[in-house]
Amino acid sequence: MPDDQTRGIRDVDHVAFIGLGLIASSMCLALRRAGFAGRITGHARTEATRVRAIELGLIDEAHATAADAVEGAEIVVLCVPVGACGAVASEIAGSLAEGAVVTDVGSVKAHVIEAVEPHLPAHARLAAGHPIAGTEKSGPDAGFSSLFDGRWSIITPSARSDAASVALVRSLWEALGSRVEIMTPDHHDRVLAITSHLPHLIAFNMVNAAADLGKVTNSDVIEFSAGGFRDFTRIAASDPIMWRDVFLNNKSATLEMLGRFSEELDALQQAIRDGDGELLEARFAAARAVRASIIDAGQDIAADDFGRALLATGAANRDDLSAPVPDAHEAGD
Amino acid sequence: MPDDQTRGIRDVDHVAFIGLGLIASSMCLALRRAGFAGRITGHARTEATRVRAIELGLIDEAHATAADAVEGAEIVVLCVPVGACGAVASEIAGSLAEGAVVTDVGSVKAHVIEAVEPHLPAHARLAAGHPIAGTEKSGPDAGFSSLFDGRWSIITPSARSDAASVALVRSLWEALGSRVEIMTPDHHDRVLAITSHLPHLIAFNMVNAAADLGKVTNSDVIEFSAGGFRDFTRIAASDPIMWRDVFLNNKSATLEMLGRFSEELDALQQAIRDGDGELLEARFAAARAVRASIIDAGQDIAADDFGRALLATGAANRDDLSAPVPDAHEAGD
Repeated sequence: MPDDQTRGIRDVDHVAFIGLGLIASSMCLALRRAGFAGRITGHARTEATRVRAIELGLIDEAHATAADAVEGAEIVVLCVPVGACGAVASEIAGSLAEGAVVTDVGSVKAHVIEAVEPHLPAHARLAAGHPIAGTEKSGPDAGFSSLFDGRWSIITPSARSDAASVALVRSLWEALGSRVEIMTPDHHDRVLAITSHLPHLIAFNMVNAAADLGKVTNSDVIEFSAGGFRDFTRIAASDPIMWRDVFLNNKSATLEMLGRFSEELDALQQAIRDGDGELLEARFAAARAVRASIIDAGQDIAADDFGRALLATGAANRDDLSAPVPDAHEAGD
Repeated sequence: MPDDQTRGIRDVDHVAFIGLGLIASSMCLALRRAGFAGRITGHARTEATRVRAIELGLIDEAHATAADAVEGAEIVVLCVPVGACGAVASEIAGSLAEGAVVTDVGSVKAHVIEAVEPHLPAHARLAAGHPIAGTEKSGPDAGFSSLFDGRWSIITPSARSDAASVALVRSLWEALGSRVEIMTPDHHDRVLAITSHLPHLIAFNMVNAAADLGKVTNSDVIEFSAGGFRDFTRIAASDPIMWRDVFLNNKSATLEMLGRFSEELDALQQAIRDGDGELLEARFAAARAVRASIIDAGQDIAADDFGRALLATGAANRDDLSAPVPDAHEAGD
């Protein structure tokens, strides 16, 4: 039995998942891919989801209650919308094993930690986390084992974390293919408000505004959506409940970023009204330059138009794409 | 020699392109793919572009002036930013052949037609057009022959169009792989303001706002961009001059759509401030539903996350993707 400080996912015999959607199902598949030989138990509120998770081989045992699912588990992963984490923590509190490490995958960290920590028994620890990965699909059938490959997972230690629990959750994410970064919950929530929460809010709003306007122009908005609008609809196809909870739980950072967005938009609007081509060109050129940084950072493929042309012709292979290659993982702990 | 009314691209011996960027180079490659055996001449302002277009085999002859390039051409395609179309029309007016059909590929139609028509000699016709296709890349090297496959190209007849010129331009686009729709210039400009111009403006603005905010949070915005922001950077990587001209030339429709966007955004902002989860969820669910319509209309692939996972693993092939299949083209004219 290794020392608590050096314990990694390979020393774990039992992982429990609460919630069995896109993220949980991808984690299960990636765990199996990594050779994890222990038990995986799970709970979802909907019976059909539990049955499907067993059919798909995601979990070994499905439980009708979250409390039953976590019994004896060394790692408990909360994969429910962030607004539900507090209630789930309360449900499982009495069933958590001695030394259990609770983590989560929520897109908001400060409020989730506040909601979960008060419920945890003294013998359990929390090392909250967030994988920066996902697609617009939901449910147990949406998962795939490579979802986290080369992507960042962020761990946000808090009062109820210790070095061993953070190390264990780091080891879990590295086994799933992620790179791991540690930051404070507040810093996480500000960064994600910019890179994820505000972009999703804007995409939801763009799609709704266009759909309303589209009523004026019949069905042409859908038919001619390839001009840029279709990309917004992809982003705006994410789970509504998950996103509702994100905005309810990261209110101040989101509102701050939204304020800045609106100020900049006012400036562009004024430039269009005034016919100020110089300002428009300068702003557009600045935005274009950011794209190169994203590709240099390995956070997107360089293929044109998201590689749609390659996908349509079936010509895609790694050589064509300058696809990002995951960094070598840090040595496991 | 076929009757003028039934003349198609296969009856044409000479096509000229003014501007040799992404769209023109893709049109040249698609023309060759379609078996076009006639001459292709071209002009670009930059000598390096002209040399490159010859090297790539896009055109048969490069000319240092637009006037020389169009001499004797039966079809002249203006592939310059919309703000430059009037000046180009003035340059080529004296060199247009008897019966020449001028068309263009600009994202704005009403102002382009206004700018071009006064310069055209009585023996030339204009059938303005716009292919709803493109990528974020620019220049002659960015072109590829399948860019227009299954995409819409819109033709917007005007005072200087006749049935034969519209039929000829339709035949050109069908040969390039497009589906063709006819609409008025004003209707085009309103539809495109929604599906393309506003989404691009919003993407440019999102990227700039995030980059500014990113200065506060160091380089984390780039590093953690996979949360949605990277998709905006792809859209915002398009040519700044092209987009400057779009907004200068489609001012009223863009400002109208932007007004509606801002009203809706105010409502979402208020809902976040009030913690109104019900409103947020309803708006997000409505936006998600639009996505299904886009895929049903064959305007995007259904693959998760733009198919990035498939691209990264090289697993892409048509069977995996439910990729849109181009409609059977209408019978050529």
